[in-house]
Amino acid sequence: MSGQVIGVIGGTGNLGAAIAWRLARAGRTVLIGSRKAEAAQEKAAELGHGLVGMANADAAAQADLIIVTVPFSAQEATLADIKPHVVGKIVVDTTVPLVPPKVMRVQLPAEGSAAARAQGLLGEGVTMVSGFHNVAAHKLAQDIDVGCDVLVFGDDKAARAEVVALADAMGLRGLHAGALVNSAAAEAMTSILIFMNKTYKVDGAGIRITGELIPPAD
Amino acid sequence: MSGQVIGVIGGTGNLGAAIAWRLARAGRTVLIGSRKAEAAQEKAAELGHGLVGMANADAAAQADLIIVTVPFSAQEATLADIKPHVVGKIVVDTTVPLVPPKVMRVQLPAEGSAAARAQGLLGEGVTMVSGFHNVAAHKLAQDIDVGCDVLVFGDDKAARAEVVALADAMGLRGLHAGALVNSAAAEAMTSILIFMNKTYKVDGAGIRITGELIPPAD
Repeated sequence: MSGQVIGVIGGTGNLGAAIAWRLARAGRTVLIGSRKAEAAQEKAAELGHGLVGMANADAAAQADLIIVTVPFSAQEATLADIKPHVVGKIVVDTTVPLVPPKVMRVQLPAEGSAAARAQGLLGEGVTMVSGFHNVAAHKLAQDIDVGCDVLVFGDDKAARAEVVALADAMGLRGLHAGALVNSAAAEAMTSILIFMNKTYKVDGAGIRITGELIPPAD
Repeated sequence: MSGQVIGVIGGTGNLGAAIAWRLARAGRTVLIGSRKAEAAQEKAAELGHGLVGMANADAAAQADLIIVTVPFSAQEATLADIKPHVVGKIVVDTTVPLVPPKVMRVQLPAEGSAAARAQGLLGEGVTMVSGFHNVAAHKLAQDIDVGCDVLVFGDDKAARAEVVALADAMGLRGLHAGALVNSAAAEAMTSILIFMNKTYKVDGAGIRITGELIPPAD
């Protein structure tokens, strides 16, 4: 894993920049992608820690593992843009299917989840994982305890474990949460958290799995 | 609320019995319903605290607020049984759409959620609320801290507040979680918790909303 290159697509956005920053700070080699290379370069310079910025397609081409952090409305176009460059790689989709203006209302897509939609758009040649749906980006961008578990979904257990480890490296608690189809649970939960933020005046509500969790041996 | 009668449909099951026991212990008037009146009477006698058992339809008829606690496979028949007796009342659906044998896999129904399905089966004359999807029944049945928030869903805010208060009375933390359609999030999360129980050897994983929550004034 030492030589692994991680590409964060949409890395100039709030979530992407925070993920890139935490991973780079943890010593990972991270490329920030954006629709415009120049914006990515500026963000990379701003964040430091050896981050490098470039166009999304270039970041996807040069990376071994790709994390997609774009709004639901941009998911389809973004995945089409990187599709030629991700075959045989792990793609981590973080998309939450929020449909403005009713973002406090669960509105899962026809495919069942944004992750399933991503798999459909990229095809079976990609090892799809999803996660990071519930973490408040503005908290992740600070050097604080985010107070939120990262539920990681995917049908390939080894790929899932890589992403769980990435969450751990970022100072979060990554947890295996089952098959890719289960992504619907975390994606839907984000609308609940936005509702909580408004109803209970929370500055970035999160979720924790309770109980005594014993990490699996493998 | 002092004269309010609560009917727990399917109250001889693990979740129903635990809810009935906690509510009766908190001083509420609770009827336990079951398909067979005799089984309900036995369970009521076993649990004590003034609980009374009878057939589901009778419990629904005599109660002001009805809590339905049956497996997904029994939801349709049970709701048909109580339908003539619940018009104008609050019905709290706790159904989790688990489809054996793959209970660790999210399998939301075509209606989007079990709660939406319940509303469809009972019709608009009923004030539908849903909740208690994530609480481990065997923990709820003991005099311990369950360690799990109760997310409460419903389009009628006042009815939702009644159920939040019931959860609080049971020694849990009830939380407003938005419209009935949002129930999908908590229903789906139960499959994740079952997966956690197996993968991380947890004795009844639960969820907590994190952050500093300030209860709304109304």
